[in-house]
Amino acid sequence: MTNGQDVRIETDSLGEVAVPANMHWGAQTQRSIVNFPIGGEKMPAALVRALGVQKLSAAKANMKLGVLDAGIGEAIVKAAREVIDGTLADQFPLVVWQTGSGTQSNMNANEVIASRANEILTGKKGGKSPVHPNDHCNMGQSSNDTFPTAMHIAAAVEALDHLIPALKKLHGALDAKAAEFAPLVKIGRTHLQDATPMTLGQEFSGYAKQIEYGIARVEAALPRVLELAQGGTAVGTGINAKVGFDTAFAAEVAAETGHAFVTAPNKFEALAAHDAMVEMSGALNVLAVSLMKIANDIRLLGSGPRSGLGELSLPANEPGSSIMPGKVNPTQCEAMTMVAAQVMGNHVAVTVAGSHGHLELNVFKPVIIYNVLQSMKLIGDAAHAFTDNCVVGIEANTARITQLLNESLMLVTALNPHIGYDNAAKIAKKAHAEGTTLKESALALGLLTEAQFNEWVVPSDMIRPRD
Amino acid sequence: MTNGQDVRIETDSLGEVAVPANMHWGAQTQRSIVNFPIGGEKMPAALVRALGVQKLSAAKANMKLGVLDAGIGEAIVKAAREVIDGTLADQFPLVVWQTGSGTQSNMNANEVIASRANEILTGKKGGKSPVHPNDHCNMGQSSNDTFPTAMHIAAAVEALDHLIPALKKLHGALDAKAAEFAPLVKIGRTHLQDATPMTLGQEFSGYAKQIEYGIARVEAALPRVLELAQGGTAVGTGINAKVGFDTAFAAEVAAETGHAFVTAPNKFEALAAHDAMVEMSGALNVLAVSLMKIANDIRLLGSGPRSGLGELSLPANEPGSSIMPGKVNPTQCEAMTMVAAQVMGNHVAVTVAGSHGHLELNVFKPVIIYNVLQSMKLIGDAAHAFTDNCVVGIEANTARITQLLNESLMLVTALNPHIGYDNAAKIAKKAHAEGTTLKESALALGLLTEAQFNEWVVPSDMIRPRD
Amino acid sequence: MTNGQDVRIETDSLGEVAVPANMHWGAQTQRSIVNFPIGGEKMPAALVRALGVQKLSAAKANMKLGVLDAGIGEAIVKAAREVIDGTLADQFPLVVWQTGSGTQSNMNANEVIASRANEILTGKKGGKSPVHPNDHCNMGQSSNDTFPTAMHIAAAVEALDHLIPALKKLHGALDAKAAEFAPLVKIGRTHLQDATPMTLGQEFSGYAKQIEYGIARVEAALPRVLELAQGGTAVGTGINAKVGFDTAFAAEVAAETGHAFVTAPNKFEALAAHDAMVEMSGALNVLAVSLMKIANDIRLLGSGPRSGLGELSLPANEPGSSIMPGKVNPTQCEAMTMVAAQVMGNHVAVTVAGSHGHLELNVFKPVIIYNVLQSMKLIGDAAHAFTDNCVVGIEANTARITQLLNESLMLVTALNPHIGYDNAAKIAKKAHAEGTTLKESALALGLLTEAQFNEWVVPSDMIRPRD
Amino acid sequence: MTNGQDVRIETDSLGEVAVPANMHWGAQTQRSIVNFPIGGEKMPAALVRALGVQKLSAAKANMKLGVLDAGIGEAIVKAAREVIDGTLADQFPLVVWQTGSGTQSNMNANEVIASRANEILTGKKGGKSPVHPNDHCNMGQSSNDTFPTAMHIAAAVEALDHLIPALKKLHGALDAKAAEFAPLVKIGRTHLQDATPMTLGQEFSGYAKQIEYGIARVEAALPRVLELAQGGTAVGTGINAKVGFDTAFAAEVAAETGHAFVTAPNKFEALAAHDAMVEMSGALNVLAVSLMKIANDIRLLGSGPRSGLGELSLPANEPGSSIMPGKVNPTQCEAMTMVAAQVMGNHVAVTVAGSHGHLELNVFKPVIIYNVLQSMKLIGDAAHAFTDNCVVGIEANTARITQLLNESLMLVTALNPHIGYDNAAKIAKKAHAEGTTLKESALALGLLTEAQFNEWVVPSDMIRPRD
Repeated sequence: MTNGQDVRIETDSLGEVAVPANMHWGAQTQRSIVNFPIGGEKMPAALVRALGVQKLSAAKANMKLGVLDAGIGEAIVKAAREVIDGTLADQFPLVVWQTGSGTQSNMNANEVIASRANEILTGKKGGKSPVHPNDHCNMGQSSNDTFPTAMHIAAAVEALDHLIPALKKLHGALDAKAAEFAPLVKIGRTHLQDATPMTLGQEFSGYAKQIEYGIARVEAALPRVLELAQGGTAVGTGINAKVGFDTAFAAEVAAETGHAFVTAPNKFEALAAHDAMVEMSGALNVLAVSLMKIANDIRLLGSGPRSGLGELSLPANEPGSSIMPGKVNPTQCEAMTMVAAQVMGNHVAVTVAGSHGHLELNVFKPVIIYNVLQSMKLIGDAAHAFTDNCVVGIEANTARITQLLNESLMLVTALNPHIGYDNAAKIAKKAHAEGTTLKESALALGLLTEAQFNEWVVPSDMIRPRD
Repeated sequence: MTNGQDVRIETDSLGEVAVPANMHWGAQTQRSIVNFPIGGEKMPAALVRALGVQKLSAAKANMKLGVLDAGIGEAIVKAAREVIDGTLADQFPLVVWQTGSGTQSNMNANEVIASRANEILTGKKGGKSPVHPNDHCNMGQSSNDTFPTAMHIAAAVEALDHLIPALKKLHGALDAKAAEFAPLVKIGRTHLQDATPMTLGQEFSGYAKQIEYGIARVEAALPRVLELAQGGTAVGTGINAKVGFDTAFAAEVAAETGHAFVTAPNKFEALAAHDAMVEMSGALNVLAVSLMKIANDIRLLGSGPRSGLGELSLPANEPGSSIMPGKVNPTQCEAMTMVAAQVMGNHVAVTVAGSHGHLELNVFKPVIIYNVLQSMKLIGDAAHAFTDNCVVGIEANTARITQLLNESLMLVTALNPHIGYDNAAKIAKKAHAEGTTLKESALALGLLTEAQFNEWVVPSDMIRPRD
Repeated sequence: MTNGQDVRIETDSLGEVAVPANMHWGAQTQRSIVNFPIGGEKMPAALVRALGVQKLSAAKANMKLGVLDAGIGEAIVKAAREVIDGTLADQFPLVVWQTGSGTQSNMNANEVIASRANEILTGKKGGKSPVHPNDHCNMGQSSNDTFPTAMHIAAAVEALDHLIPALKKLHGALDAKAAEFAPLVKIGRTHLQDATPMTLGQEFSGYAKQIEYGIARVEAALPRVLELAQGGTAVGTGINAKVGFDTAFAAEVAAETGHAFVTAPNKFEALAAHDAMVEMSGALNVLAVSLMKIANDIRLLGSGPRSGLGELSLPANEPGSSIMPGKVNPTQCEAMTMVAAQVMGNHVAVTVAGSHGHLELNVFKPVIIYNVLQSMKLIGDAAHAFTDNCVVGIEANTARITQLLNESLMLVTALNPHIGYDNAAKIAKKAHAEGTTLKESALALGLLTEAQFNEWVVPSDMIRPRD
Repeated sequence: MTNGQDVRIETDSLGEVAVPANMHWGAQTQRSIVNFPIGGEKMPAALVRALGVQKLSAAKANMKLGVLDAGIGEAIVKAAREVIDGTLADQFPLVVWQTGSGTQSNMNANEVIASRANEILTGKKGGKSPVHPNDHCNMGQSSNDTFPTAMHIAAAVEALDHLIPALKKLHGALDAKAAEFAPLVKIGRTHLQDATPMTLGQEFSGYAKQIEYGIARVEAALPRVLELAQGGTAVGTGINAKVGFDTAFAAEVAAETGHAFVTAPNKFEALAAHDAMVEMSGALNVLAVSLMKIANDIRLLGSGPRSGLGELSLPANEPGSSIMPGKVNPTQCEAMTMVAAQVMGNHVAVTVAGSHGHLELNVFKPVIIYNVLQSMKLIGDAAHAFTDNCVVGIEANTARITQLLNESLMLVTALNPHIGYDNAAKIAKKAHAEGTTLKESALALGLLTEAQFNEWVVPSDMIRPRD
């Protein structure tokens, strides 16, 4: 499998395995490469970084509890920090489709950190001395609590440091548009049919509200994601961990990340179920629903240039048609709505995976975190791109908006109090039949004067409740 | 539980149970009513009818094989036919949320048919003699093969006798519209942006094709639905059934229904998995996708009356706005797209349920058939309503269509071969900037004559490949 | 359509319609019956009751604001209360698959309440005087804000008055089992493989925690469900509603229901999107995931009687096999897991429907509330049945549990500190190869005495972290 | 954006863009990199290869139709073949989350192939002469027909050349196990409860049948995937393509791939909808359901070593527990079931994306093909790994199987014909109560002799229908 590469011999309980000499990983990682040639989706970078945080925090906690030698512990901390920093990113070759407990990625982290720690201490990669992948890097831990801990760290950090900031930026941009467009009265549409007037600012205020609530939903899901399984070890009882390890560990993670991680109050739930991930995925699913609506509306309002609604002009970021001025494909909306579809699908994958735990362990851990992190990254990235390359550059086509408003037959409702329902209806019917404006129809019927029409039919009076 | 009602005492292996005296059902049905007060979704009528077909066919097959007394068998056949006819519909009170093998509904059928057969033979409801619910009605059967058999009968009959005819009617209506609208050239739209011309007939031909293929997809899923589990009995081995019962039974079902039912070649697969149902649900899911697209397009093309695309007029079946002539809410499209959303959801329920079989039996049978039959009925019913109350009454707004076509800037591409790309682009840019038509712009630029414009810019030449 | 029934003539803007004389509904309801012969799923009872609350509260608010005559208003209040009480349940014949704004069900409520109010005031059903369905019952309202308001009322009331109490009962029962089973040490299982010991109480504590968090998730989704769209009228602007109507209305709903309803701060979001429903459905989806896990585990632990795990005995509520003592089919688990599959599917239907709003109105309202209410009712009902008919009656098979524990090879890990890892492994390997117990193997190898074995291998010391 | 790299200036209709000098791509590809910094999921390799097939076939067809100069055409063919071969794989940097028509990936292909063809002809990368990305590489094409054509080519080739062979291998392995295990009688289980006997071979025959049907389902979906949109150009009319291009093109693709591609009979459907992809995804979804069931069953049958069912031994491919002999985590089952969950989620993403087409174009093309290809690759790869690393090495634990069979109480049913139902039940009840075997109980009751028991209770007679 190593095709003439330089190799190093590593061992595990099944025997010897040749690994590439220039790599830190050991026997168990190498076996996983061989046994799981499935797909190409690597364990997500955010999860690998979280494993770094997890190993670093475990070493620190074990040192504090007096069960880990400081010399070894500090070397582990140094090596783990390189995992956090991404320096060792190429040392994590495993794919998502492996052991369902993530054991092999936990061992990958143990092996890489032990090897790098050994290299720091002795100048030589690999081996199990002085730093042992299991005895030291995995001290008081089991894959069964380590991997879900890394899942929660990765998801919470991604949510707090990437997703929410991106959503806040998008919210700010939509809110700014709502303010910018506040004075612009336009026709409202329900059932895709012309309805009573509103302002373009009001329309955008709804979009902004959706994102504001979307942020609140992610935040509402976070408390249970901030709970860490670490300390449950193999089945949730904490066997082989030192008393107090769980809380000491959580404190280290909180210090390292700056986020309010705590130890899970019930470790059995934390190993056997991933309801907190399904819940977070549900919050992402609502965001997908919101973003699908918003991006769909914006491309519909921007449809045209001649044969659509044409109320908005979207930024032209790339050639649409070279000969067709004004044809701007709503490409950012398209990317965003594709992201939304993906997130909805990912949510079902997470739901199915989350429902399949057996007894003390859910063994769909890698597929769950893969989908949650993909959804978070896609929404976050797309929120940035959509904001920068679309929302901030949206312009209102005031002339078109005003023309559609004035041509609308719905304004006739403003005449009811003045000339009665029946006369108002007559005006609308005549205008509809003849394709004229309401004013033309009203004047032709002689039911009121132009001055009266102008005084009574004032769309900007129709955008709020009556006094 | 029977609140002073007249009761009759029935028994099962757990003891005595009081059942309403005027009802045919027995002890096991009554226990299920008590034990499963969940939701209100009754076992679907089509499934109950299929249980009638199943019991009738089993009795006939057992008589043919010489293991069932003719007097008893004929009474069962008579009673079962009343189940098929719906006369005994109120005798099936059980809900979907019961035993996952559907055992209680199988026993409901056994009890009702035995009671009714006893009534036919003796004048008295209930009891186990001369006709016994288990020994005679369930002879050579187990719930484990009976219920999946009824599922397949119900789904195939619903598909062949209701769904496909409804889809053919819808297809015919769309096809007729495609023909009616064949001469009507209009602007095409991609990315919701104006594009090159096409005919309205071409647009509708795409919808018709989607439905044509949708029918083919249902038909492609049918072969495996036409396979019947009957004869597998408890675990698929056929223990307690007479050799030859499976094929004799399938022949009876085929004769009774007029459809090409056969015995399943592998009974283990037929009890333990419901892949055929997941497959059929997948075909319904594609139909949902198609119908979502078609109904969405139709309401978008019918948007307006003034501020939308306005190319189609949909029938006004109910008041939209009393004062707003021309405001026709696309209510049939809305019902159809709601049905589509439901079918997509049902498909996930079926998928999840289908994936959860354990060893020799999938115990999500009732929820699977409930969803498949609901999806079939909804699509079938909605196809009828959508056809009758929407599609056949769609009218093209020719004036609007032609106006949009002529105002379009996309027609400029027809000038390329005559005046060159650069000059054509100049015309389009000027028209876009000034809001004029292409012809006005072209003439203002002096790049060609009106006669030339009229000769060269012919939308109806732009709707097919070049020679 | 009325087949010789007595009829009454009612009218709407499209003209006259004959309705059954003994029914309260009017022209628009009747048209909907005719135009939407789709499926058989009636508008859910909880939604109809919520429409009663909505109409009652609107009448009270309009009276307080001085825009509705008290005589008419009080009659509306009386009639609406009958809708709330369910007395008029048979007056709501419409199905889910209708106008996507729920307009026809809003008109159904307006027509029925006006008719009943007229009957109260004049002794005669129907008509529009003195109480008018639109002018009075729908005063200051639009279907576009009324129906989403009823959706939120129905969902919040169902969650608070049915679902959460049912979940608390289930939680209590699981928690009680956790306490009851606290002393019982058993083998833990990960990857479905034997693992280190734990107590049966610890195992059940995980289930209890899942439900505790499930309740918290529903509660976390409630704040946005308690926001009411009322006051937004047609497009969110509040046109035609009296200033202050929205807050006055919400106060009436809060008073009527005893729940903390408030007016939605942004009515555009509240009409055009149903993110709050998607969010709530997401909380239900997590419950489905939890319940699938719990019910699956319980049936797995109860598998047997001879050839399964056999650690639990579940209550026998109905005949399993008459000849097979001890064969108890886990029927309540089966009903529960079928409910879970349905809720997961419903969640996708809600997600798809929620994502499809167009501009000022989402027109998938009926299908959304249908699914949310079905999911809530199913989970709530199933939680009751599962608790009453399964959880409270679960018994531990102590002998079997202890036998499996003592036979387990995993206990060997307790010997590591005493005889070293290598000797411990020797004992386990010999026991595995020869099919003996650890003790037998250890004594045969002469590595320790029986007294030492009994002192060192104490499963109850293996269920917590080390000191 | 190119950070001091050597750059080359390329142009498009929006102006000049600097691209890396050592890369073939041009202005539009570079703009897409800048505008869509979303996620990291590159356009799948199979889709890129399919774009190579598409460009090669288009060039050949255009040469045959006499509209493309042979010198230029042959250079395009050479360059396109390098895309097919994967030599130019690093020239396709774009992600899935871009324009929903896949326009930018089509232009990526046009730019790379033109550049490489120019390099072949002139020694210089890039530029538009002699080979022009649009005029020559995209001749008679539009992204709107090119990209869906590549989607269909990629999906059909992946299905026929990777997925189906992998499934056939898995089917063969399961079938071989069914034969190997044909003589081995075991206890069947329904509702996870002990049931009547069957053979382990019968159990595996059900799994094999599921895969056999799964292959048939993929094959049933292929006819519509083998239809190519090419020739529809911008909106389906074929404007700008040469008459006959569509069929000539499809013939080239068929020749190049060896698969039965044809031109789509209706190009409007082929651009505006992707029902064929939703259908294929549905077939993959059924496979996911089947594989979830099979892998779940196998790990359940392999549970233990002491406290589970223990009927199967799975291959130990990696260390389970170093001290725990016999603890073999079913890691291949876990990878497979994670794949199944992913495919179910992907199917929802495809369903949602497929349902969202607007008018003449579905603009969710990249996300659709990304999910379909991921699902195909994952199932195919996992089928190989599961077969090689699990199925072929499965061994039956004959002793355990026989012990469970003989201990089972279900065998008592064999005594009914000999000693009557009541006596048989007595034996079973006594055995259950006292924890003895049936034989012990029968002899203790004195109801029959040991010889009679041995003659009458023969499990291998209970695995088929009665004569």
